[in-house]
Amino acid sequence: MKGNFVYHNPTKVYFGKGALQNLGGELAKYGKTVQLIYGGGSVKKNGIYDAVVSVLKACGKRIVEDGGVMPNPTTEKLKEGIKIARENKADLLLAVGGGSVCDYAKAVSVSVHCEEDPWEKYYLRFEEPSCEIVPVGCVLTMVGTGSEMNAGAVITNREQKLKIGHVFGSEVMPKFTVLDPEFTYSVPRRQMVAGIYDAFNHVCEQYFSGDDDNVSDRLAEALMKSIVASSRVAVKDPENYEARSNLMWAATWALNTLIAMGKDTDWEVHMLGQAVGAYTDATHGMTLSAVSLPYYRHILPYGVKKFRQFAVEVWGVEEKGTDEQIAYMGLEKLREWMTELGVAQNISELGATEEMIEGIADATLVMDGGYRVLTRPEIVKILKESL
Amino acid sequence: MKGNFVYHNPTKVYFGKGALQNLGGELAKYGKTVQLIYGGGSVKKNGIYDAVVSVLKACGKRIVEDGGVMPNPTTEKLKEGIKIARENKADLLLAVGGGSVCDYAKAVSVSVHCEEDPWEKYYLRFEEPSCEIVPVGCVLTMVGTGSEMNAGAVITNREQKLKIGHVFGSEVMPKFTVLDPEFTYSVPRRQMVAGIYDAFNHVCEQYFSGDDDNVSDRLAEALMKSIVASSRVAVKDPENYEARSNLMWAATWALNTLIAMGKDTDWEVHMLGQAVGAYTDATHGMTLSAVSLPYYRHILPYGVKKFRQFAVEVWGVEEKGTDEQIAYMGLEKLREWMTELGVAQNISELGATEEMIEGIADATLVMDGGYRVLTRPEIVKILKESL
Repeated sequence: MKGNFVYHNPTKVYFGKGALQNLGGELAKYGKTVQLIYGGGSVKKNGIYDAVVSVLKACGKRIVEDGGVMPNPTTEKLKEGIKIARENKADLLLAVGGGSVCDYAKAVSVSVHCEEDPWEKYYLRFEEPSCEIVPVGCVLTMVGTGSEMNAGAVITNREQKLKIGHVFGSEVMPKFTVLDPEFTYSVPRRQMVAGIYDAFNHVCEQYFSGDDDNVSDRLAEALMKSIVASSRVAVKDPENYEARSNLMWAATWALNTLIAMGKDTDWEVHMLGQAVGAYTDATHGMTLSAVSLPYYRHILPYGVKKFRQFAVEVWGVEEKGTDEQIAYMGLEKLREWMTELGVAQNISELGATEEMIEGIADATLVMDGGYRVLTRPEIVKILKESL
Repeated sequence: MKGNFVYHNPTKVYFGKGALQNLGGELAKYGKTVQLIYGGGSVKKNGIYDAVVSVLKACGKRIVEDGGVMPNPTTEKLKEGIKIARENKADLLLAVGGGSVCDYAKAVSVSVHCEEDPWEKYYLRFEEPSCEIVPVGCVLTMVGTGSEMNAGAVITNREQKLKIGHVFGSEVMPKFTVLDPEFTYSVPRRQMVAGIYDAFNHVCEQYFSGDDDNVSDRLAEALMKSIVASSRVAVKDPENYEARSNLMWAATWALNTLIAMGKDTDWEVHMLGQAVGAYTDATHGMTLSAVSLPYYRHILPYGVKKFRQFAVEVWGVEEKGTDEQIAYMGLEKLREWMTELGVAQNISELGATEEMIEGIADATLVMDGGYRVLTRPEIVKILKESL
């Protein structure tokens, strides 16, 4: 554990079949007014909305509606949520949905009592909240982002064509999270595999950095192996509880800060993917899968040791040949798995065009924790190879 | 993740060189009177006591001394600690030491405002606290028990010859923990390896149960591999920061509830070891290592699949031969590693005698979460093979 760190994750997780039965006990800790946050309406179709509302009513709560959160929550929607919370004096923000809904709830939570413009304060100046934070609870219905047990909140500014994530402190993490794997059964296959790749890539982003032996990287390998094994069951049998529950729990730990402790992290795939997302509004996980292989092939020569370890430990590649050959075999296994899942392997299929490349490159933030700090020409090259 | 579960671990961890600099910030959250809890005085020799006291004084705290906590904290000592806390109205119990000191602090924390006899209430009747709990903070100086980030507290009743652990709820977990790997450098080698084996066995206890594929077991394998690899460096080079820091962090996660989520657990080695400890007062980790191999050899036939997985995933045993042969090879690798570490491999060297066997068997609690629920003759057989 090379670097010093602070680990603090106080989110209380209720996990398993029927976990929603714990919601009432949590609600009792907060005031009367609950801002009920959800997305485009799938929770109304699959019955989860009704189940949550009936708990809220049984607990005597006043429900304030805040639906229609889009896959990439925008600054406009954020303003709307802040207004609802202010006008109704929301005591709890209850996010019922996937990562976008949960991210949005957290962004609202730090903005309700903030007098400045939250986009400028949190996403352009990366400042920390200096105001009261409205508590957030979460009922997760889609696996992938890890937002249910972390303090991250990605917001998109459509006008500025920027999609930026701010990772806040532990005081912004959801106070509680309900994780019922059965709630994820009705997620369409395309969304399920995008979420699976998103979770896997979260681990990669934290893994592909540094070359010391540390607990974080070993835990990362365990999570990757678990995600791959369970995904292979889930794509064939989406209602396999064992597989879906493993995916749900592994995805939570893929991005709840643990595996980043004591080490540098990369996050360049997310920077590339988010820039693609700002231009195409494509599903987050698909933007990541679409740029991953060109990016990893590009940086592999700068981190051969770790890419070799990835090949051997995660994919069981035989230790035959040069380190570089073994390392490339790991990426080949990754490509095969992406094909099995059916996730996007290029950005053209997500709507990106050659003409957009310069703009996407402009929108790509450059990180410096991984094996290579990308130059502008390298970003353009990777994006072109991703077309 | 077969079973439903609640995961909640709010302990804030400050990890790394110089992590004690964060103590002041934490102290500011509590009242003036700090009960300073420590063991036999090693913290006075290595300077950690002075360092902590100077932070306490700089923060204007009133220090109430509570030293002399023994390796297996007793009910008598517990009464003493409760008295100190009551008479001085302690606002914070600050444990500076290893697992015993931290366990003791937690036992005091739930007893100060408890009107019943804590031994009877918590350790014989296994009831939960119904009183105010005094907050606990921890500065860890020895690695192994995981007590720094869990709600467990083992107490020994010498008169009744019983050593019993109670795992409380998350409200009993330390509010904060300072983990500086350099604080562990001065631990004598025998204590260091006992702590390493204790941590490893914590993982085993949670791993050797069930046969489904789950995230917890994969994380468990990652922790075991990390502990074994780092221990091999640490026994040769005790001041290797990378190794000692990995051991410290892996040991914390070996017993902070994560890898037990969604599955049954065994804990019979601890029951056997604690009974040996009640008779011999031997170092906890050594009592575990001394009974492990006879116990695991005895239960292996009932859990071949997992013992085989242990052999292959943790020890890299080649997949040649029958499942049972591969499984036994894993135990052989475990034996070799125990020899490398120099931990006890029999209870005679800890002071146990043939005459004590029946008494130790009487004191051994029988658990039912592992591969085999031991009968009385089996316990006696395992203990005799451990002589």
